Formats: sequence, structure tokens, C-alpha cells
Amino acid sequence: MSQTIAVVGGTGPQGKGLGYRFARGGYDVVVGSRSAERAVPVAEEIAARLEGVEGAGSVTGAANPEACGQADLVLVAVPWDGHDDLVAGLPLDGKLVVSCVNPLAFDKRGAHGAIVNGGEGSAAESAQALAPGATVVGAFHNVSAVLLWEDEALDEDVLVVGDEAEAKQQVMELARTVTGRRGIDAGKLRLARQLEPLTAVLISINRKYKTHSGIRISGLDTHQAD
Amino acid sequence: MSQTIAVVGGTGPQGKGLGYRFARGGYDVVVGSRSAERAVPVAEEIAARLEGVEGAGSVTGAANPEACGQADLVLVAVPWDGHDDLVAGLPLDGKLVVSCVNPLAFDKRGAHGAIVNGGEGSAAESAQALAPGATVVGAFHNVSAVLLWEDEALDEDVLVVGDEAEAKQQVMELARTVTGRRGIDAGKLRLARQLEPLTAVLISINRKYKTHSGIRISGLDTHQAD
Repeated sequence: MSQTIAVVGGTGPQGKGLGYRFARGGYDVVVGSRSAERAVPVAEEIAARLEGVEGAGSVTGAANPEACGQADLVLVAVPWDGHDDLVAGLPLDGKLVVSCVNPLAFDKRGAHGAIVNGGEGSAAESAQALAPGATVVGAFHNVSAVLLWEDEALDEDVLVVGDEAEAKQQVMELARTVTGRRGIDAGKLRLARQLEPLTAVLISINRKYKTHSGIRISGLDTHQAD
Repeated sequence: MSQTIAVVGGTGPQGKGLGYRFARGGYDVVVGSRSAERAVPVAEEIAARLEGVEGAGSVTGAANPEACGQADLVLVAVPWDGHDDLVAGLPLDGKLVVSCVNPLAFDKRGAHGAIVNGGEGSAAESAQALAPGATVVGAFHNVSAVLLWEDEALDEDVLVVGDEAEAKQQVMELARTVTGRRGIDAGKLRLARQLEPLTAVLISINRKYKTHSGIRISGLDTHQAD
């Protein structure tokens, strides 16, 4: 029996790209959005791309709370603006929740990290505080939405942070759907404070070098990282 | 005529390793410390390692302010604790100042980023505020002191942030002494807020995987990064 993943905010570029990868990797995916009417067309678009892909999971659409209700694992892929109110309204008790939310601020000098809780917080920690009955893991912050929507394995690493070892292992395994390799255990959940705004650096590099950059960790043997 | 680099805090592991690499790459290096008496033996140790290395620069030792006085480029490689008082006392007017300082905090759960200026600051920005007559660039935050003290080119990228293009280019070039490749232009100086505490993530990975990890940026063609 395959595992079902809800993607809250699954109509945005990051959520849509990750939903596509997860379904391509064999997981059943429920694309969540504010309403089922918004979610269903995106689910259909993803399903259409997966036609004929052997072993692909199903892709359906639902309003965010209903999507969570159908899933064991919930990916939160919503904008930082409005994040807390949205997460507080979701039925997340007992779920494994993966946050890939990047609290960023933008001005004429470019992107930079938004200040969360006076510098002592992150979107992932906020989600954990708002859903104490869930287990929150941070991952997939730094993967390019553009590359996710393509077919090649991404030449980068997925850094995974969390306070519960088993949940973290599960998400490290899920990373294979994106990079073809296991994710990297990058430490405790609070280190999401460092991973989330790192995306601002990649945005800056992308602008300068006209690319879709990502993070790789050097110094890991293949067998360690795998 | 070769360029002279002062390494403030050159007796610490990061400063000593970078001083070694810079001298090995042909720059003249002045190791700085609280007193010349502390600096000279480390300078002699580095010079001894470079004996017979063709094209290596000279390595001497001096108290931090005197080291700065002899140099065009000053690397600040001091601990975050006491950083501001120390930097405020240095003669940095007109100098290119490179900050590799990582404001980190440690507790029983490991390393994490220390909060600088309520989350809206970094060691590099503090240095720029304290030395308005200098041009501050952030770089070399994430390179392993252990690997720096070896001889191989590091298999990672040096991310360089700064607000003045020419100074940034000069530091990107200096990165060749460490990685054999040009550093990567990672954006404005304020993105040091993201690069500095990223070292906490690498420390966490090092502990978990028993390695000396580093950062590589994917998505850059060799010719772009070079």
C-alpha cells in the first residue's frame, strides 16, 4: 500500500513541483488549495504529465483541510505571508508534517531572510508550535521549482532537519524522489532558521549567474550520503 | 609586487589555515594576534610548512593593529565573542576587510546561529558599521579549518558577499588559494546573515557523518564559476 502525501499549497510552484516528484516516485498525492475548485485542475495537470510513467502514484485535488485528512504525511508549501493562520486551521494531529516554507523579504536590493520571532524562530518551528500534536520536519527549502517541474534528478542535496529521528529518516528517504539520493541529516529542527533564508542566497546567485542553483554538501562519501 | 594580507586572529584555527593558504598562493601574510609574542611562533610554523613551496609569499607575525598597518587586505578571523571591541580598535580606514566570522551559540543540542542585532545583522555588517572607512566583504565562513591546514584544494565553493563590486571580485579571486576556483558572487553584504550561521548546519553534519563538510553550489557551469 503506498503512502498518501497531502501538499498544502500544492498549486504554488514549489508545492506543485514537489507534488509532481512525489507522485512520480510512487506516492499518492493530494494537491491541497484554498478550495477544491482551485486544487483539482492542478492535480489533473500533474496526473496528465504522469500518464504512462510506470509506478507513478495517483494525484487528486481537495481543499487543504480535506487533503490533510486523507494523508499520513503533509507537506506545507505555502507562502510565509499568512502561514501561521493557515497552519493553525489544519487538522495535523498525529501527522508527519514537512515544512519547506521560506520566510523571505524582498526589496530593491533583492531577497533576504525575514525575521521570525526576533531571530529565534523559523517557519518550521512556528508550525510545530501551532500543531503540537504533529511531528514537524524541515526539508526541500532550497530546491528550484523550475527544476522540480522537469524530469531529471536534481544535482543537489536535500537538507533535512528535525527533532524526531524516525520522522527525519522518512523524509530523508522521500528526498530520493527529487535528487535520486537520500536526503542529508542536517540536525535539529531549529536549524531550519539557517536553511529557510539560505534560499535568499540562491535567489541572488540565480539572478547573477542566470541559473537555477542549489546546495550540495561536500565531504560526504557516496555511501554516507546514500 | 605581491599583495600583503593581514590575518587578524591569525593564531586561531580558521585564521591560521587561511593564512597558510594565502601565503601558499603567493600572497605575503602578516599573522596578527593580541601580541607579537603570540603571533610570531604561528607565523614561523606556517613559514616552515611553506619551505620549498615555489612562489609562496612571506609569513611574519605582529600585534593585530600593526599587522593591519602593513596590509592592503585584512582578514578578520576572530571569535564572535569580543568581535566588536576588537574591530573598533583596528586601523582599517581605506582597507579591504574580509570577514569570515561566524556568530554561533552552543548548547547541549549543538551549534546554532547567535542572534545579531535582533536578527537584522551579521558580523560582517557589524564590522562595516564599526569601520565605515573600510570596505567589508564576507567570505570563507564555511571552510573547514582542518582541511585548510592540509594541502589539497578544497572540494567546495567560497561564497562571497559584499556591496562593492570591485572589492568582491578581488576576494572571489583570492578564493582560488583555497579551492582552486574563483569564489561565487552570492550577493549583497547583508546576506552574510545567512552565510555566517550556515556553519552551524555544517557542524551538525560533521558530527553526524564524521566528516569535514562544506558547501557547493549546483547549477553553475564550470566557466560561469571560473
